[in-house]
Amino acid sequence: MMPSEYKFEGWLGHNVEAAQGQMEWGSYEPKKWQENDVDIQVTHCGVCATDISVLRSDLGPTLYPCCVGHELVGKAVRVGNNVKNIKVGDRVGVGPQAQSCEQPDCYECSSGQMNYCSRAVGTYGAVYPNGEGKSYGGFGNYNRTSSSFVFKIPDGLASEDAAPMLCAGITVYTPLKKYGCGPGKNVGIVGIGGLGHFGILFAKALDADKVVAISRKSSKREDALALGADTYIATGESDDWSTPNRRSLDIIVLTASSPDMPINQYLTLLKCGGTLIQLGVHAGGDFPQLSAITLLSNGLSIAGSINGSPAEMREMLDFAAKKEIKPWIQTKPLEDANQAIIELEAGKPRYRLVLVNNKCWIAYGTFDQMVLVLNRVWIQS
Amino acid sequence: MMPSEYKFEGWLGHNVEAAQGQMEWGSYEPKKWQENDVDIQVTHCGVCATDISVLRSDLGPTLYPCCVGHELVGKAVRVGNNVKNIKVGDRVGVGPQAQSCEQPDCYECSSGQMNYCSRAVGTYGAVYPNGEGKSYGGFGNYNRTSSSFVFKIPDGLASEDAAPMLCAGITVYTPLKKYGCGPGKNVGIVGIGGLGHFGILFAKALDADKVVAISRKSSKREDALALGADTYIATGESDDWSTPNRRSLDIIVLTASSPDMPINQYLTLLKCGGTLIQLGVHAGGDFPQLSAITLLSNGLSIAGSINGSPAEMREMLDFAAKKEIKPWIQTKPLEDANQAIIELEAGKPRYRLVLVNNKCWIAYGTFDQMVLVLNRVWIQS
Repeated sequence: MMPSEYKFEGWLGHNVEAAQGQMEWGSYEPKKWQENDVDIQVTHCGVCATDISVLRSDLGPTLYPCCVGHELVGKAVRVGNNVKNIKVGDRVGVGPQAQSCEQPDCYECSSGQMNYCSRAVGTYGAVYPNGEGKSYGGFGNYNRTSSSFVFKIPDGLASEDAAPMLCAGITVYTPLKKYGCGPGKNVGIVGIGGLGHFGILFAKALDADKVVAISRKSSKREDALALGADTYIATGESDDWSTPNRRSLDIIVLTASSPDMPINQYLTLLKCGGTLIQLGVHAGGDFPQLSAITLLSNGLSIAGSINGSPAEMREMLDFAAKKEIKPWIQTKPLEDANQAIIELEAGKPRYRLVLVNNKCWIAYGTFDQMVLVLNRVWIQS
Repeated sequence: MMPSEYKFEGWLGHNVEAAQGQMEWGSYEPKKWQENDVDIQVTHCGVCATDISVLRSDLGPTLYPCCVGHELVGKAVRVGNNVKNIKVGDRVGVGPQAQSCEQPDCYECSSGQMNYCSRAVGTYGAVYPNGEGKSYGGFGNYNRTSSSFVFKIPDGLASEDAAPMLCAGITVYTPLKKYGCGPGKNVGIVGIGGLGHFGILFAKALDADKVVAISRKSSKREDALALGADTYIATGESDDWSTPNRRSLDIIVLTASSPDMPINQYLTLLKCGGTLIQLGVHAGGDFPQLSAITLLSNGLSIAGSINGSPAEMREMLDFAAKKEIKPWIQTKPLEDANQAIIELEAGKPRYRLVLVNNKCWIAYGTFDQMVLVLNRVWIQS
């Protein structure tokens, strides 16, 4: 397929109202083509809370127009001459990061921590260096991203399942691995949403001895247990939920973020030397007041973590395929993107919405491909 | 020497005024003798800020009368029948911990983290289980401690140098080792006092690439450089001390503690994935307000650490002897203990006061021993 055969269109936010379901379909100019880029015909894109935050300029002024979506999966339709790892026709995905500087003087890039590169370019709403233009995300029909951050989706992983792994999945997988989740370890997952439900799935698949789901209300108890959690703590429904669970966990993954969360009580759940990992940031960004005594008296750590490196992303995708990780998702046609963000804002998804771009197959697919899609065989082969 | 030949006497705090230099010399009843105990004739004892906090009931109500001092070195004069690692006449030391429960059901003890045992007994001001009585520290002539927490002082380490290692030293050595201080690492030491000066000494001895001393004023610059620091940052004497040093350190050891300390600026000094280690707790114990964004955006960790395990204590003492670590201390006769805590409260020591009990050698030592002491040969053999 030649570049002239497709144009870049998507759901564009033009101002803060977009976050209330007022994105508009339109075309945009993708970044200038480089020979290490890949153009992707998007078939699936997960919907992340960050999409809403950016549409609403919560994390600083957004550069409108903005096409959000950083859990995208599709088919490589154009591959630059310098790209070695992807070929046209490959099923590929892109997460929240589109580029890192890859310069030898960059500590983060040269130490394999590209997800912390201070010159990183986000998948949407960011400006590329050297006048290459802006980045646009996966709520559309095409995406252009540097091959360093385009990942082949392993056979056996359905596109709709792979999509939310590219942000929600990697965000919990990376710290679980880094901080030793595995046999002999007890893991707490605070917040049972998009990230938290992946936390339960991955912690179990990594063979943690015990996975404890922690949420304010008991309304997600059955889901959490069905996802694989061994026990459930409803912090809002007991006067003293922490004392009976004191010093019982090795790792806590904190997927929620609020200035009111009982962080010192979470810390008391940790065994000596345990780690609490903070993944989210609420507007304002301040932690609740931490007790130094709690931290010291049990040799605890608090760690921040965002996303993962390209190597970690590939490892997670392979692991998910091998372990047949099956996230709980709900799909919507790409046409309903505005409705999707309204539902996410209302906390409805159980546990991740994935937009599906059915039309692209009719417009650009061969007859054989269309049959395969209809039979949902392609996505499992 | 038989028990009847000595009695336990020391500087006793009877109320909060003791912290202002009003301890009184007196006798006390040591814990009931057990066959795993060691009686130590104390020759040296370091003076730690915690001594003052406890005398003043800063960390909760103190059980007066209290004899403080948890950096004590002396000679084993009585050794229980069940003790294997110490014999009468050995030069030994005791740090801040006198006992851990050593029960198989204790996660901390069974995982080698006895310093976090929730049934631990402190070297002074604590109550032993099973009606064995109270613990009394090293500001006196004798001390009785369980052999699990009595450490042989290696030959080559002077008693006056070993004493402050037993709290100040181990408190910085343990996290420096745990968090990877060594070749290729840049280490920041915040606060140049008793702990901080050990931080510089140990970080250099552990072959860190670069040691950065960080203090509010420049008044300790020369000392810090003489101790081995490569550079010095005076945070109170520059409008923007953090930007030029951004993302330059792998580890920061925070020996100071105050609700006003610029913890988020300290965090910006860390390289991606770096760790800030909090060692101290001020009255009240709350951390300054942490920025979750700072923590997340660079994959940082904050860890609390207290003291060290018996294994870490032995490792540190051997390491210090091998590397000929020489702390900067000032000695005072044990008689001047009240003056010592007044000077410490005023921040005068450069950098650790050690009380020396000269009299015990005259009272109990042989003539030969006395000559050795006078020549300071014994402490170096």
